Amino acid sequence: MKIALAQLNYIIGDFEKNVFKITEAIRKAKAEKADLVIFSELAVSGYPPLDFLEFKDFIDRCKKSAEEIAKECIGIAAIVGCPVVNPRPEGKNLFNAALYLADGKIKSEIHKALLPNYDVFDEYRYFEPGNEFHTIDIKGVKIALTVCEDLWNIEDDPMYVSCPMDVLMKEKPQLMINIAASPFDYTHAEKRKAILKRNALQYDLPIVYVNHVGAQTELIFDGGSLAMNNKGEIISELQYFKEDFSILNFEDGSWKLEVKKNPTSGFQPPTSKIQRIHSALIMGIQDYFYKQNFSKAIVGLSGGIDSALVVALAAKALGEKNVKAVLMPSEFSSKGSVDDAMAIVNNLGVEHEIIPIKKIYTEYLNTLKEQFKGLPFSVAEENIQARVRGTLLMALSNKFGYILLNTSNKSELAVGYGTLYGDMAGGLSVIGDLYKTEVYELSRYINSEKEIIPENSISKPPSAELRPNQKDSDSLPDYSILDPLLYQYIEQRKGPHELIAAGFDGQLVKRVLKMVNTNEYKRKQFAPVLRVSPKTFGMGRRLPIVGKYLS
Amino acid sequence: MKIALAQLNYIIGDFEKNVFKITEAIRKAKAEKADLVIFSELAVSGYPPLDFLEFKDFIDRCKKSAEEIAKECIGIAAIVGCPVVNPRPEGKNLFNAALYLADGKIKSEIHKALLPNYDVFDEYRYFEPGNEFHTIDIKGVKIALTVCEDLWNIEDDPMYVSCPMDVLMKEKPQLMINIAASPFDYTHAEKRKAILKRNALQYDLPIVYVNHVGAQTELIFDGGSLAMNNKGEIISELQYFKEDFSILNFEDGSWKLEVKKNPTSGFQPPTSKIQRIHSALIMGIQDYFYKQNFSKAIVGLSGGIDSALVVALAAKALGEKNVKAVLMPSEFSSKGSVDDAMAIVNNLGVEHEIIPIKKIYTEYLNTLKEQFKGLPFSVAEENIQARVRGTLLMALSNKFGYILLNTSNKSELAVGYGTLYGDMAGGLSVIGDLYKTEVYELSRYINSEKEIIPENSISKPPSAELRPNQKDSDSLPDYSILDPLLYQYIEQRKGPHELIAAGFDGQLVKRVLKMVNTNEYKRKQFAPVLRVSPKTFGMGRRLPIVGKYLS
Repeated sequence: MKIALAQLNYIIGDFEKNVFKITEAIRKAKAEKADLVIFSELAVSGYPPLDFLEFKDFIDRCKKSAEEIAKECIGIAAIVGCPVVNPRPEGKNLFNAALYLADGKIKSEIHKALLPNYDVFDEYRYFEPGNEFHTIDIKGVKIALTVCEDLWNIEDDPMYVSCPMDVLMKEKPQLMINIAASPFDYTHAEKRKAILKRNALQYDLPIVYVNHVGAQTELIFDGGSLAMNNKGEIISELQYFKEDFSILNFEDGSWKLEVKKNPTSGFQPPTSKIQRIHSALIMGIQDYFYKQNFSKAIVGLSGGIDSALVVALAAKALGEKNVKAVLMPSEFSSKGSVDDAMAIVNNLGVEHEIIPIKKIYTEYLNTLKEQFKGLPFSVAEENIQARVRGTLLMALSNKFGYILLNTSNKSELAVGYGTLYGDMAGGLSVIGDLYKTEVYELSRYINSEKEIIPENSISKPPSAELRPNQKDSDSLPDYSILDPLLYQYIEQRKGPHELIAAGFDGQLVKRVLKMVNTNEYKRKQFAPVLRVSPKTFGMGRRLPIVGKYLS
Repeated sequence: MKIALAQLNYIIGDFEKNVFKITEAIRKAKAEKADLVIFSELAVSGYPPLDFLEFKDFIDRCKKSAEEIAKECIGIAAIVGCPVVNPRPEGKNLFNAALYLADGKIKSEIHKALLPNYDVFDEYRYFEPGNEFHTIDIKGVKIALTVCEDLWNIEDDPMYVSCPMDVLMKEKPQLMINIAASPFDYTHAEKRKAILKRNALQYDLPIVYVNHVGAQTELIFDGGSLAMNNKGEIISELQYFKEDFSILNFEDGSWKLEVKKNPTSGFQPPTSKIQRIHSALIMGIQDYFYKQNFSKAIVGLSGGIDSALVVALAAKALGEKNVKAVLMPSEFSSKGSVDDAMAIVNNLGVEHEIIPIKKIYTEYLNTLKEQFKGLPFSVAEENIQARVRGTLLMALSNKFGYILLNTSNKSELAVGYGTLYGDMAGGLSVIGDLYKTEVYELSRYINSEKEIIPENSISKPPSAELRPNQKDSDSLPDYSILDPLLYQYIEQRKGPHELIAAGFDGQLVKRVLKMVNTNEYKRKQFAPVLRVSPKTFGMGRRLPIVGKYLS
C-alpha cells in the first residue's frame, strides 16, 4: 500500500482554501498512485478553531467541506481531521474526529478520546471524548487510527485514566496512524518522537504521524510528520516549518524503500534550541501577516538589543522592503543608542524614520504642569515617554497599514518592566517568549555569519533610557540571576520554598514572585505572544488578576 | 439538626484571610448551637484559583489551611470547599472537593464529578472528575453532598453522560447539600433556582445550597444561598451581593421554622435585570479595588452617556470623594459636551480636572508633518486624540495611584469602534458587558429617583467627537438594530443564515459579523470586563485572531 503524508498549512475557518489545499493533495497523491493520503487533525477547519466550534453554521460548513473532499476520494482513500456532531443528547455536542474517506463518501469516523485541556489546550470545552474504538481496514491492512493526544497517555504519570491503543490492540492492527496538531515549543519535537517511539515499541507496530504546519496567531506548528518502524526508528521525516508531501510504501506489515524520495535527505531538521526558535519566529511572523492579508511591519527601534532583534527577524520574515524602523530619541537617549539603531538599519537595509519625541513629551508636561506641580519626576514621566512612542508608532500604523510589532521580552513581561500602551503596544509580540538571556543567544545566532545586530547593542548594559543614566540593573536583578529564577517559577512552577532550596536568595524570591504576580494586569492587555517555550504568557498561562498569592 | 449557611467573600490565594473568615463563622455557628456550618465551593483557596492550582506550594497551603479550619470543628461539623490531591497516578492531579470536617479532623472528601468546561469555566484543566459516590452521615441525617455543577446535569440536553445524584439516591439520602461558586449573570439566579427546584422534585428531597459571594476580577458571584423543601419551594434565602449568614432547623426530614430569622424578610432579592446588573457592577468595582488595596478611581469624562454612567457607578461604589473625573475637550468637542460632563460632576460632587488636549494633539501633527504630508485626515488623526487622552489619564493614574476605569460599552467593543491604547485603556472595564441600549436602560434606572446622569447625555445622538460633526451613526447602524443583531450573534451564536432568517438585512449581517470577527485583536488587549451577561468578552469567549470565518 502506498501511503501519502500531506503536511499542510491551514487557515482557521477558511473552508474554501482548506478544501482546495486538501483536494489538490488528494489529486497529487492519486496521480502518484497512492492508495491512501493522510492529513492532520482538524485540517478541514484549521486548528484551533476555538469558539467558532460553538456556531452551528461553522459545523455545517465543516460537514459540507468534508463531503466535498470525500467526492475527490475515488480510487484513493483519505484520512482527514474534522469536527463532527455527537448524535447523542448526553455529553458535549461535538467530537474531534478523524474521517476515513473512500469511494466518494465518508466511510467512518474515529473520535479522539483523550482531550488535552492544559496549557494552551481547551479541547474538553468543545468535544465529548470518544468512547468507541475500532480499527479500520484499508486495502487489507488493519489500521489503528488515533488523533494526537490519544497516543500520549503512555507517560509514567498518565493524565488520563484510559488508553485508546490498549483497546484497539484487541483487534490486532498492523499499523498505527496518528493525525495531530501538536503545537511547537523548543522541547517539543524530541518529546514527540520519544512518545511515538514508546508507542511503536509498546505495541510493536509501525506508525505514521501527520502533523499540522504553520502559525495560528500565537501557536506555531512545526510539521515534522514522520513514519516509524516497530522499533521506533524513523523511516522517513517530513520538513520542519514548511509544507511538505511524501509517499511511502507499506507492505506485509512493514515499510519498504520509499517510493518518492528520502525525505530526510535534502534538509536537516533543526537541532539546536536556538535554530528551532529562529525558524518558529520567522514562520510565526509570516503567517500572522499573510493570513490577515498584511505585508508591512513597523517597529520602534531604540538602539537596544530587543528591538534590534525584532527588526532583524521581521526583515528576514517579511523582506527588508516591508519593514519600517522608527527611531524616536528623547533627551534621555544616549548618542550611542541612535548610532546603534542606525547601524542595524544600515546592516539590514530597512526603511527608517527618525522622529524625536522631545516636543510632544514637553507639551504633555506643560499640559499637566498644574496637576504635577511640586511633585518629583517619577514613573509617570517615564511612562509618558513610552506612550508618546507607542502613539507615534500607532499613528504611522493607522495611516499606512503597518502592523506594529512589539519588542518586549519575557523577562520584562514577567516582572512588569514595561509601559502598558507604550512599549507594550503592538499587534504581535515577537520575542515575548524569550527571556533576556535567550534574546542575547538568538542575536548571536543571527550574527553568526555576519554582524547584523550591532555588537554594541549586544554588549552594552540594557537600559530603558527613560531617565538620566537609567539601567535595567537599577530596578531589576541581573538577568543572569533573574532569568533562571523566572524560568523555575514560570516554566517549572516552583514555589518559594523550592526556589530557596534551589539556592535563590529568600528576599529576592519574595520580591520577584510578587512582581510577577502583581503584574498580571499588564499581561492581560498584552498582544499575542509567539509561543516557543513550554509555558508562554497568554492563553496557556491563566492567572487571577485580583488575588493575594505570593503578592 | 441546626444547619448554618455561611455565604462569604473570599480572596483568591489569601489563605490567612480566608481561614480567618471561615473560622470566625464556625465560632459564630457554634455559639448559636448549630450542628453543621456550610461554606461554598473552593472557599479555602477562593474561586477561581486558575493556574495557581498548578503550584504544589499553593496546594500545600490549601491543605494546611483546611487542617487549621478542621481544628475549629470540635462540637460542630463543617463542609468547606477545597482543592485536594488525587492520590492515584492516573488522571489529573487534583480533585475539586467538599471537605467534611468534624471532631477536629478532615473526616471525608466528596469529589466534584461534573467539571464545567465552557464559557468562563476551565475546571477540567485542573481537576479529575470524581468517580466515587457516597453519602455522609451527620447527626443521623444521611446527606447527599455535591459540588455545584453536580446538580446541573438535569437539563434536557445534558452536557455530561453521568449524573451523580442518580448514584447517590441508592443510599437513600434525606437531604441534599450543594456547595457552589456559580458566577452571576443577569439570567443566572432564576436559572439556578429552577435547576435546584428540578432536583428537589426529581429526588423528592430538600436542598441546602451555599454559594460564593463577591467579585473576582471579571467574575461576580451574587450569593443568594438558599434552602428548599422537597417541593422546590424556597424556605429561606440569603442576601444577594452581600455576605450573609443564617441558621435553619432541619428535623425529621424537613425544615422547621427558622431558628434565627426569616432571611427573605429585611431584604428583597433584586428582581429586574437592570437592578441586578446595577448591584453586580457596584460590587464588581468595589471588590476590584478593595482586593488590590486601591481606593481611588479616575475616569475620562466626555459628556457622553458611557463615561457619565461609569462615573456614576464608580461614585456609588467607591464614594464620590474617591473618584476623579477628567474632562479632556478637543477642537471637535461641542460646547454641549463640556456642559454635560460638568453637569454630572456637579450632580455627584466628584473631583474633576479640565485638561484640553489641543496643544498636545497639535504637537503630534507637527511632529508627523513630514510623514503625513499631503494625506487626508483619517482614522490615524482620530486615534491620536483618543491616545492623547489615554496617556493623560494614565499619567495621572501613575502619579497619584488611581485605577483608570474604562468606559467602552459592549456594542463598541463588538464592532471595534474604539481606539486601542486610547479610549480602550483602563484597568477594569465597567460597562463592557452592556450593549449601548442597556447603557441607556441602566442610566435611566440610576436616574429613577433623581437626575444624576444628565438627561442631555441620554437624549443626544452618540458621538466620538474625533472629527467635525461626527456621529456614531455615520459608521455604525442604529443601536436599536445593531444591538439585537450583536446579541443574536454573540450571546445566541446564530450564524449568517439564521440571522437573515430572523429578519436582518443580508448586507448588514455580513458587514457586522465581519466587524466583530476582524476586531478580535483589539479585544485581546482589552481590560477585564465585569461579567453581567451570559456571554462576555474575555475569558468566556475565545476566538482566533487570525482566521477567515465570516471575515
